[in-house]
Amino acid sequence: MEKKLVRSPRTNKEMEVHTFHSSPWTMVLPITAEQEVVMIRQYRHGTEAVSLELPGGLVESEDGTPDDGARRELLEETGYHSPSLLKLGECYPQPAILSNKCYFFLAEHAVKVRKPVLDDGEDIQVIKMPLMEIMSKIRHSEIDNGMVLLAFSLFWMKQKRLS
Amino acid sequence: MEKKLVRSPRTNKEMEVHTFHSSPWTMVLPITAEQEVVMIRQYRHGTEAVSLELPGGLVESEDGTPDDGARRELLEETGYHSPSLLKLGECYPQPAILSNKCYFFLAEHAVKVRKPVLDDGEDIQVIKMPLMEIMSKIRHSEIDNGMVLLAFSLFWMKQKRLS
Repeated sequence: MEKKLVRSPRTNKEMEVHTFHSSPWTMVLPITAEQEVVMIRQYRHGTEAVSLELPGGLVESEDGTPDDGARRELLEETGYHSPSLLKLGECYPQPAILSNKCYFFLAEHAVKVRKPVLDDGEDIQVIKMPLMEIMSKIRHSEIDNGMVLLAFSLFWMKQKRLS
Repeated sequence: MEKKLVRSPRTNKEMEVHTFHSSPWTMVLPITAEQEVVMIRQYRHGTEAVSLELPGGLVESEDGTPDDGARRELLEETGYHSPSLLKLGECYPQPAILSNKCYFFLAEHAVKVRKPVLDDGEDIQVIKMPLMEIMSKIRHSEIDNGMVLLAFSLFWMKQKRLS
C-alpha cells in the first residue's frame, strides 16, 4: 500500500490518498465440452464469507503474459486445462485505489488433467455448474463477486456478437 | 485497513491478510429523456489517469439507504436529479480485500436541476454521452472501469428481460 500526498487541481488543497500497486489479475471462464462452467468456492477474508467464483489470480513474475498467468491459475486452482484461451476483455477493477488491470479469458473445451495444487492460503472447492443455470444463480445472488459477474457479462456479449 | 492473522482451514498455517472495511458504494446510470447517459470524467489516484465513469460513491451515515446515497451522489457530482431510481443489481466489488457491497441504480428521465457540488478531493467534468455510443466506447477501451462496465451490463440485461 502506498500513501501519497496530492494536490487537488481544482481546489489546490493537499490531501492524503491511499493506493495499492499490484501486478495484473486474471479471471478465467472455463467451459467443458458438456457446457459446464468450472467454478470454485472459496473463503474470502474481505467479506468473511464463502464465495462462488471463477478461477484466476495475480499474474506472477514467472508468467510471460496475462494468458500464461490465466492458464497457470486455471490449472493450479482447478486441475483443468484448455487447448485455447480466448480473451473476453479487460478492465481496471478499482481505478480509485488499485493501479492494476484484470484480464478476462474464455477457456473452452476445458478438461481435467490433474489435481489442483493450492497455495498455502487457498482453500478451494471445485464445482461444475451447467452454463444454463448461471443466470439463475446470478438472479438469486448466489454469484455476487463483481468481477465474476463482469466475466459472465463479457461472455454473453461475445456470444451475442457471434450469433 | 485491517491486518488479520488467520489460520488456513486446509493447511492450518497462520498467515497475515489485509482487508478494508468500508460502507457500501453506489453507482448510478442516469439517462435523460433524450437517451443520453450522464457520465463523469475524473482523475483516479490508483491508476494515475483520467477515467470516464458513472456518478456514485460511498453511502454516508446521513444517507438512510443506498437509494438515498445514490440520489445524493448523482446530485452532488452532476447536478442531475431523477424522479425515479430503479435498482439494477448489487455485488461485492472485491470480496478478497473489501467487505462492502456496491449497489447499482438506473436513474431515468434525469434532469439537470443545479450545479454540481464537489468534495475537496473531487475534480469532475460532467459529460452527456448518447446511449447508442456506449457499446462502441467500451469496445475501444474508452470506458474501462470494471464497476462501470458491470453497471452497463446489468442495464442491458434488464432491457433484454423487459423486451
